[in-house]
Amino acid sequence: MTEEEFIESLTAGWKSKDPRLIGVGDDCAVVKGGAGEDSLLLKADAVVEGVHFLRTADPFLIGRKALARAISDIAAMGGEPLYALVTLGLPSGFQPVRMQKIYKGITALAKEWNIALLGGETTRTRDLVLSVSLVGETTGYDPVLRSTAQEGDEIWVTGSLGNTQKLKHFTFEPRVNEGQWLAEKKIATAMIDLSDGLGIDLPRLARASGLSFELELEKIPCAKGASLKEAFQEGEDYELLFTVSPEKSGLLKKFPIKTSLQKIGVMRKKSFKISEPVKELLHGYDHLQKR
Amino acid sequence: MTEEEFIESLTAGWKSKDPRLIGVGDDCAVVKGGAGEDSLLLKADAVVEGVHFLRTADPFLIGRKALARAISDIAAMGGEPLYALVTLGLPSGFQPVRMQKIYKGITALAKEWNIALLGGETTRTRDLVLSVSLVGETTGYDPVLRSTAQEGDEIWVTGSLGNTQKLKHFTFEPRVNEGQWLAEKKIATAMIDLSDGLGIDLPRLARASGLSFELELEKIPCAKGASLKEAFQEGEDYELLFTVSPEKSGLLKKFPIKTSLQKIGVMRKKSFKISEPVKELLHGYDHLQKR
Repeated sequence: MTEEEFIESLTAGWKSKDPRLIGVGDDCAVVKGGAGEDSLLLKADAVVEGVHFLRTADPFLIGRKALARAISDIAAMGGEPLYALVTLGLPSGFQPVRMQKIYKGITALAKEWNIALLGGETTRTRDLVLSVSLVGETTGYDPVLRSTAQEGDEIWVTGSLGNTQKLKHFTFEPRVNEGQWLAEKKIATAMIDLSDGLGIDLPRLARASGLSFELELEKIPCAKGASLKEAFQEGEDYELLFTVSPEKSGLLKKFPIKTSLQKIGVMRKKSFKISEPVKELLHGYDHLQKR
Repeated sequence: MTEEEFIESLTAGWKSKDPRLIGVGDDCAVVKGGAGEDSLLLKADAVVEGVHFLRTADPFLIGRKALARAISDIAAMGGEPLYALVTLGLPSGFQPVRMQKIYKGITALAKEWNIALLGGETTRTRDLVLSVSLVGETTGYDPVLRSTAQEGDEIWVTGSLGNTQKLKHFTFEPRVNEGQWLAEKKIATAMIDLSDGLGIDLPRLARASGLSFELELEKIPCAKGASLKEAFQEGEDYELLFTVSPEKSGLLKKFPIKTSLQKIGVMRKKSFKISEPVKELLHGYDHLQKR
């Protein structure tokens, strides 16, 4: 059993029968509002020194990244980020000037996305920990889950993948506008953000939807300096991976945002055998498939 | 400048001009809903090994406490807890059976309060960290802030204070029903939960309300085995401290819950000089007063 499976087994009892609650286990938790088509999106995320960044990293960018990751998850549902709470775990003796820079990084990105910061508590920890709780919403349309792709849907991705450590893992722009347009126009049938990399997140979406997939490897939009393997496995792209029915994919020509869009494959029924070259690129795929 | 003041200076720019947002810096952040008298309450809180519990503590109780603390903050606004997200920071090599017990502790308390658990992510940390995000609401009435006490209001407290390490710091029952009754009946004019102890939290409420206070020390409900000093300074009581106008305090006779209520003093105007015996019991009071 992998750690992901173990945690899923522990939280299995958490799946609520409350019909207002959907999307548990998705990028965000979703609470359907009374109005029918308004939903509340809830996301909690933490970045930890030594895991998500090194002690030597620029504190402004550490703060920015902590919030940006959570925004990316709201974007992956097609939502608008609204309110954030930040909890900072500080090692004793942590320099005030570094702390100040962390807050500045958070504040700058929040301002950019018009997110209200509602609280900034601190606690003592041995390593620096930034925990962000973000509330978002969709107003007048439904959030896009990762579990609702259909057989035959085209697989699309925003931007380019790989070489993220060099290019953008600290400075990526969450795809909020892209996600909102795809959700509001009811074009995306399923969506997920690429935090762990295409090689983990595509199988995740497929599994949640009860499907398999076929990829055109020559279509994968590798970032400058990234090999195909890196585009699959490096992670921290924070691009959107989404599916679209063939009838609706023509509408993507009207995509009003400069971000590039690329079709990379098609969703297939669960029994479809992934080709060997693709399988080799999907680390972590086999144990997910076994379930 | 104390750490609390330093953090307040860093997050000063966060105070939003959005009229929907109130209660920033209170027990919870408050978002006023469209319906006028419905509000969303948001709380993020973390417990950390070595700070809030020892490595040797019962993992079931660690999980329980992480959620209970956040519930207590919702209770302090008079709200109903609804949805929780849990992020678990795990040291490498952490025993699965201990993790299982943590989740059980969380799940048991969530069930008790009918809280839907919407997510349970994990990340790597050096010390065990449990971060809880809790969403609550008040429906048809306003949440009670800590900043709205009036001069002349009586000061009341639920239950008894002190000796918490022995009696209840792991097993306390958040005062949700008590807080809701006091808010719904519009009896409490201000409210706070006693997490840091009466000696810190009462000055905090007074400062937020722009007032001072007078206490009757012989009325403080010390728990069995607790000295007056411990009742003020030990912390982790998780009782409710609230203020009531003299005209309304008669209504407390109708309090329908078994929890004891005790009047301990009166709110005074800001210039009122705290008596020396009380001052001695208020550690941390002086630097708060200076602001």
